[in-house]
This record gives sequence, structure tokens and C-alpha cells, in this order.
Amino acid sequence: MSIETPMSASFRGRSVLITGGLGFIGSHLARRLVAAGAKVMLVDSLIPEYGGNWFNVHDIRDRVTVNICDVRDPYAMPYLVQGQDFLFNLAGQTSHLDSMDDPHTDLAINAQAQLSILEACRKHNPGVKVVFASTRQLYGKPDYLPVDEKHPIRPVDVNGINKLAGEWYHLLYNNVHGIRACVLRLSNTYGPGMRVKDARQTFLGIWVRNLIEGRPIRVFGDGMQLRDFNFVDDCVDALLLAGATDESNGQVFNLGSGEIINLKDLAVMMTELGIDGSYEIVPFPPERKAIDIGDYYSDFAKIRASLGWEPRVGLREGLRRTVAYYQKHHEYYWAAMAG
Amino acid sequence: MSIETPMSASFRGRSVLITGGLGFIGSHLARRLVAAGAKVMLVDSLIPEYGGNWFNVHDIRDRVTVNICDVRDPYAMPYLVQGQDFLFNLAGQTSHLDSMDDPHTDLAINAQAQLSILEACRKHNPGVKVVFASTRQLYGKPDYLPVDEKHPIRPVDVNGINKLAGEWYHLLYNNVHGIRACVLRLSNTYGPGMRVKDARQTFLGIWVRNLIEGRPIRVFGDGMQLRDFNFVDDCVDALLLAGATDESNGQVFNLGSGEIINLKDLAVMMTELGIDGSYEIVPFPPERKAIDIGDYYSDFAKIRASLGWEPRVGLREGLRRTVAYYQKHHEYYWAAMAG
Repeated sequence: MSIETPMSASFRGRSVLITGGLGFIGSHLARRLVAAGAKVMLVDSLIPEYGGNWFNVHDIRDRVTVNICDVRDPYAMPYLVQGQDFLFNLAGQTSHLDSMDDPHTDLAINAQAQLSILEACRKHNPGVKVVFASTRQLYGKPDYLPVDEKHPIRPVDVNGINKLAGEWYHLLYNNVHGIRACVLRLSNTYGPGMRVKDARQTFLGIWVRNLIEGRPIRVFGDGMQLRDFNFVDDCVDALLLAGATDESNGQVFNLGSGEIINLKDLAVMMTELGIDGSYEIVPFPPERKAIDIGDYYSDFAKIRASLGWEPRVGLREGLRRTVAYYQKHHEYYWAAMAG
Repeated sequence: MSIETPMSASFRGRSVLITGGLGFIGSHLARRLVAAGAKVMLVDSLIPEYGGNWFNVHDIRDRVTVNICDVRDPYAMPYLVQGQDFLFNLAGQTSHLDSMDDPHTDLAINAQAQLSILEACRKHNPGVKVVFASTRQLYGKPDYLPVDEKHPIRPVDVNGINKLAGEWYHLLYNNVHGIRACVLRLSNTYGPGMRVKDARQTFLGIWVRNLIEGRPIRVFGDGMQLRDFNFVDDCVDALLLAGATDESNGQVFNLGSGEIINLKDLAVMMTELGIDGSYEIVPFPPERKAIDIGDYYSDFAKIRASLGWEPRVGLREGLRRTVAYYQKHHEYYWAAMAG
């Protein structure tokens, strides 16, 4: 565990609620909080299309409380927020394409439920500290790179619009109602436990699956699109730092990485991890082209200056750990192919 | 009628749906469209706290079709959008304070229902042209004046957040789904037919009522806050211009006025309209102070350059017409005081 002692002290013996707690990032966060001595409750809906997976907490199952319910549940959440010292609000619908096909579900989860949770905090637990996981997706197609927090907001899909509303509810409840809250805009987070069955959570998921199953990785467009990536441990560092201090209150912070790479080079890197893999460059499917944002990478100077965060796990090392995890545990993440 | 001939031609014989059609702006728009020869259907929920009022259409009642239903109605709207050439989407929850007390209702009307309407257009009437009425409120406290469309977005209340989501759904459906849509960010619109029973729609409403009832106009703060105002006829001009051309598609336009005035001078101007009136300077109520934005006025150069719009009715003349209207018709807008 790389957690610093002062940060551990912030969470030892404290009650922490994580929505999306059986998901990719939530489960890693839970592991770190358990190690720090926190009393951790995980809320997850286990909707099959989303990120929740019991295997993500198999090693800490007896040290966390799990409450299966949906963040849209108007009765459960007002009860569950009571008595919590911290709320890491990670539950969300993450698929951009799903948000276009079924915009109302995205709205209900990413905006409406967030408002309900904040109302519950206001009424039942105004002393809680809330950290909300948002996405760089809402910057849209960048005007400049790297993208800092002052960049104009220009969501290109329903998901981006609703995540933004969710963000602003958090900031508003901080500013007007005194519910201490902050927002992290995550870039591409990857690592063990991410959804790899398909591309709903991150395209890297399906890349990992294809690599392990011996199919070519499919790179859309020309492969020249630049991106930055955060290994999940680094993302968890940022969540904990943001939760541990009141300096984050009312603030929005980008995460990101100084290691910028284009998607073709990323595909090459993945095929060089010791697994016999290949990739192919294929044209954008039209529904993806419509919401593609070209090059993107984040400026994370603000969180570095304010909270002292920076990523520590290099991309090659992170990918190596990720692929090794799924080589070992893939049976828990997708059904094996026939034949 | 000041409507130009080319604009009339755009609407003659065309089917037009106006949500919030019994409201303040919707009813004036209906009057102009009827004069231009359009087939006009008004949708209104007549929720008592909102702007709908049968008297607003008393003079055109037999020349419009009125359908009483809520924009949240998931069955009515998909039916009603069918066959329409234009949709002026004006229905909304407008009270900033109500949005803080009951954020979910504001979300349901200003965001969720907008998404439903756009989905209905996508599925049943993709050729419709949509004009969405938004608000300058979502700029928040200005960084600079006058505020143009490039100003950062910083909503200070739940209403601003939800209106913004509503805006972006419109722009997204334009950009991705080809539903031609544009957004007007209205500043302070006033005139005959506005809600004057209370301050839910505009503070000018309750000012007019107080003036006519012989009570002092109450100016919050020090009265030095600058504002700009649009008489409703000018606002309707902008809506019609935006509806009549495809140059507006995907665009956001500020309305506004070059006639900037502070609230104290506005109160003085109102007491000089021939009614024996007075005003008083009173401290901000705390719930209003929390969402106050200081000085605000809009830069409307974009819509002037793109669509040729500019306001034509001066403030004193507009206020005179407004007060004269309520002197004559106040019985339809508020219950007389006892005694």
C-alpha cells in the first residue's frame, strides 16, 4: 500500500460510503480505505451493463459492508448517507453510446440521482464530505492542449451534459448549502477491475479482452489521436487526497498524465507486453465518429499545486499489471468463448 | 403589428407548437404568429405557480388551439409534436428560489421534459425547427460586462444548472441528430401578461403589482445593481427571427438591451409613470443574497450581426405600456386585496 500516513489518519475509524463501490475505481478505493482503517460501505446496483463485479472485492469481502441498491432509489440513499463521514460518489452511467440510445436512463443516474443524494445529505447529514467523480468528456473537442479546468465546457453527448449537471449540483450544494464537496474530472482510468467485457466503461477494456483472447485490437480512425491515461492506483490517490482536505471544497480538479500517447502507439505497446497480439486500424463507426473529440490530454497542474497529486505508475507498467490481472482472472470478467 | 413581411412568409400556413403558450412570452408569440397566418397550438399546464393565464390569449382565443398538458407528460408530447413545422419551447420553471426548495421539480421540467420533447422530435418529427428559451442566469456572477456568449458558464442555482442541461440537449440534438434547434438566452423580459402576483417569474412583476396597489416597491441591497431589460415584443421579434432561418441552427444567442439601468433608478422610473408610487431600499433576504449575481447586462452583438435583431421599445415606454395594462386588467392577474 502506497498510502501516506497523514492520509491514513484522515480515514482511520471514519465511516465512508462509496457509490459504485463494486465497480472498477470504487473497489480499489475501498481496498485502500480498509487498509487505512476506515469503516467502508459499498453501494452498488450491479446492473449487468455497468461496472459492478463481486470479484473486484473478493480479497476484502469480509472487511466491507455491501448494500445492493440503485442510486436512483429514493428511499435507500437518504437512509444510507446518514452517519457517514465521507461519501465518494462514483456511481454513474459511463457509456457514451448508451447515453445517446437511452438518454433518460443516463439523466436519471448521472443527474437526477446525484441531486437526490445531495438533497439527502442536506437534510440528513450536512457534515459529510463528498468527492464526486466526473469526466474530462465534458470539455468536448479541445480548443487547446493540454486542457485545464478553465477550458470551455462543451459536452458532445448526453452523458457529458448529465455528468456536468451532476458536477454542478455538487458545487452548488457546497457553495449554497455548505455540503463540503469537490469534483475530480477523470481522464482515461485503467487497471485491474475495469469492465473488459465490452467498451462501455473504457475502450481499453475491450482492447485487453481482445488481446487476451487472441483477436486483433481495433484502433478507430487513423490511430493518431492523442490521449492520456491514469492507472487506477493513481486515481485512487487523487480521490483520497481530495477527500482528506477541506482545501478541495468547491473545487474542480483535472486528473491526467504527462505521458501522452497516440492510440496506435498504445496498441503497439499492448502487443509488446509478452502476449502474442496484433492490432488493426479500422474506420470509425459512424455513431462513434459523431461523438469523437480528436486529440485530448489534460493539464493536471491545479491538483498538483493544491493537493500535491501526480501520477506515479507509468503506462507500460500499468498496462503490464492490468493485462497480467486479466490473464489470471478473466473468468470473472467475461464468459469464455466457445470452442 | 410590427412583423416584417419576409418573416410573416416564413410562418404563413405553417403549424407551430408553443410550449408555455398561455404564459407571458408564449401568448405574445402566439398573437404574432396568428397575425402572420400560422396554425398555432399552445401547450400549457396552467400550474398555478407558473406563468400560464387564460387572459393572456383572450383576444386570440378562437384563433389558436389550446392543449392543456404538462411538458412532463410522457405520452402527450410525443403526440403533439407530430406534424408541427416549428416548436417554440418556452415552458419552464422560472423561479430561482423554488428551484432551491424543490430541485427535483425544476429538474423534471427544465431538463428531463426537454430531453423527452427532443426525443419525441427525433422519433416522430425530425424535420421540425426548434427554438428554446433559456436564460442569462446560467452565466452566474459575471467576470466582465457586458456578458457575451463566450462568457464562462457558472450557474448559481439549481434552475441555472437544469436550464443549461436543457440548452445543451437542444444543441446536441441539432449537432448529432440533425434536429434543427437554437437557443436564446433571455435577459429580463417584461411586459403585459407577465406574472405579477409574486416575484416567481420576474421581480418586475411584484414591483408592478405593488405600484398599482399603492405599496412601496422594494429594492433589495443598495439598489446599485445594474440590469438590462427587454420589452416582450422585442423578445418575440428575436424568437421569430431565430425560428425563421436555418442560420440560427446550433447557435446560442444572448438577448439584451443597450439601455442599462440600476434597480434604484428603475424604481424611480416606475414611480414616475403617472401612478402615485414610492420605493424603499431594503436589505437582501438571505436566501436571495445567496444567489444574487451583482451587476449584469448582456452583449447582444451576435444576434444583431447574425439575425439583425435589436430591441426597439425603450424602457420607459415599455414600462408605461406594462403598467397601463395591469391598471386595466389586474383583476385577471391577482385577487384584489380585501378592504
